Amino acid sequence: MRGTGKAEIFVMLAHPVGHAKSPGIFNEIFEQKGLDSLMVPLSCRPQDFDTFWAGITAAENIRGVIISVPYKTAVYHKCAAAHDRAARVQSANSVRRQADGTWYADNFDGVGFIDGLEAGGHQIAGRRILQVGAGGAGSSLTYCLAEEGAAEIRLADIDRGRAAKLASLVNRSFPNCRIEVGDPDPSGMDMAINATPSGLKAGDPLPMDVSRLTPEMTVVDIIMEPAETALLKAAKEIGCRIQPGRPMMDFQVEAMSAFFDIERKDRRNG
Amino acid sequence: MRGTGKAEIFVMLAHPVGHAKSPGIFNEIFEQKGLDSLMVPLSCRPQDFDTFWAGITAAENIRGVIISVPYKTAVYHKCAAAHDRAARVQSANSVRRQADGTWYADNFDGVGFIDGLEAGGHQIAGRRILQVGAGGAGSSLTYCLAEEGAAEIRLADIDRGRAAKLASLVNRSFPNCRIEVGDPDPSGMDMAINATPSGLKAGDPLPMDVSRLTPEMTVVDIIMEPAETALLKAAKEIGCRIQPGRPMMDFQVEAMSAFFDIERKDRRNG
Repeated sequence: MRGTGKAEIFVMLAHPVGHAKSPGIFNEIFEQKGLDSLMVPLSCRPQDFDTFWAGITAAENIRGVIISVPYKTAVYHKCAAAHDRAARVQSANSVRRQADGTWYADNFDGVGFIDGLEAGGHQIAGRRILQVGAGGAGSSLTYCLAEEGAAEIRLADIDRGRAAKLASLVNRSFPNCRIEVGDPDPSGMDMAINATPSGLKAGDPLPMDVSRLTPEMTVVDIIMEPAETALLKAAKEIGCRIQPGRPMMDFQVEAMSAFFDIERKDRRNG
Repeated sequence: MRGTGKAEIFVMLAHPVGHAKSPGIFNEIFEQKGLDSLMVPLSCRPQDFDTFWAGITAAENIRGVIISVPYKTAVYHKCAAAHDRAARVQSANSVRRQADGTWYADNFDGVGFIDGLEAGGHQIAGRRILQVGAGGAGSSLTYCLAEEGAAEIRLADIDRGRAAKLASLVNRSFPNCRIEVGDPDPSGMDMAINATPSGLKAGDPLPMDVSRLTPEMTVVDIIMEPAETALLKAAKEIGCRIQPGRPMMDFQVEAMSAFFDIERKDRRNG
């Protein structure tokens, strides 16, 4: 039976939360594995966030929280300790309870992205990469691409200052990767990545100049729904290899499951 | 699929919460009815209750909370409005969100008890009743028994002052019911009710003087587990009719389901 008084409780926090995929994915995993665990989607207004988070922290049987827009940075700053992946982008997408009741932050955006690319047979080391979007998820991606040995990253963002700041930070950690701020133009690149929300809605403008794509390029979109965005469709027609957003989510779920140790044997009672 | 991002969220609050039956019962109902709803068991330490409750209130997609020991009175005092059943005992075992975000309190302890007795074919109107235990749940029972037309209630509690206070309060609302404070002695009564926790654990003392039970009496226990307490066993051997605790829970669940309107069609997204 799933969801008894002894259930292990995980929260998925976003605002709004109705569209979030992870509660359904995790609850299905719990069901399939026969675990008495629940992942609860919760939402609060930004002006109530501090109060909400204090309450979540007071709920002693909540073991972990997955965080999405707009709370990744706010939650990061509530944590007592963090993995370097979360610290360098000041952003938590997963936190777990420590023995003293405080929170430990991690961020699997980049991890899931890299694992998804590798599973798809796409190499990163030595490649020249256009990344469009230097926001929340984008920041994690840039760090991880540099960490995996990308030769060059061209960062494009409608907020050029944001891209420049990220480029300078990543460069400090990974000086061997050449990072420049540029236009959303894939010319001369091996791989082009969309890390913006453009493509979520029908009629969104294309995030990059697809007329500059050539068949030997790989085109990646982090958008999960639709599975084939207008960008991926255009890239396919040109003959590019493409990588959709779903594997990034699947590999994040795998990393989060390990992080939360969802199958641990030494269960507490609440 | 139960537990997506759009799920309706209900909380079951107790400290500790591991033994609580309602999360399992409600989650099974949600499953059977194919509802995308979750009941989440949560626990907090008494010193963290105010912080916890503020957080629960900030979580805008939590629609209702079921409350058990030790928080029924504390939660009642957090509510903006209440049914008379909750107000007269200053105790909430169920609260639901109002349109303005505040909480409305109700208490189905007595309701479930009375419905359970009626379903078992036990009459209350006109009867003389021994009730042992004038605590949280006991208070609700006394009011409801008087409301249903019991002719006489003998209240026994190890804390005689608590029993006297309850007797006086109930008497003010229901002057036609004779209420006296006495010993846990069923002599001269038609029905004898255990509303104490004595019998939950093996080896607990019997809550009343069973040597005074006679075969025409009905003996009721509100304890659910074990299903047959030592008191009920003794009563059965004497030839009394008996009523176990489980129906009280079942009828409370029914009342709570209606209170929370769990099958409502106009679902919001969180």
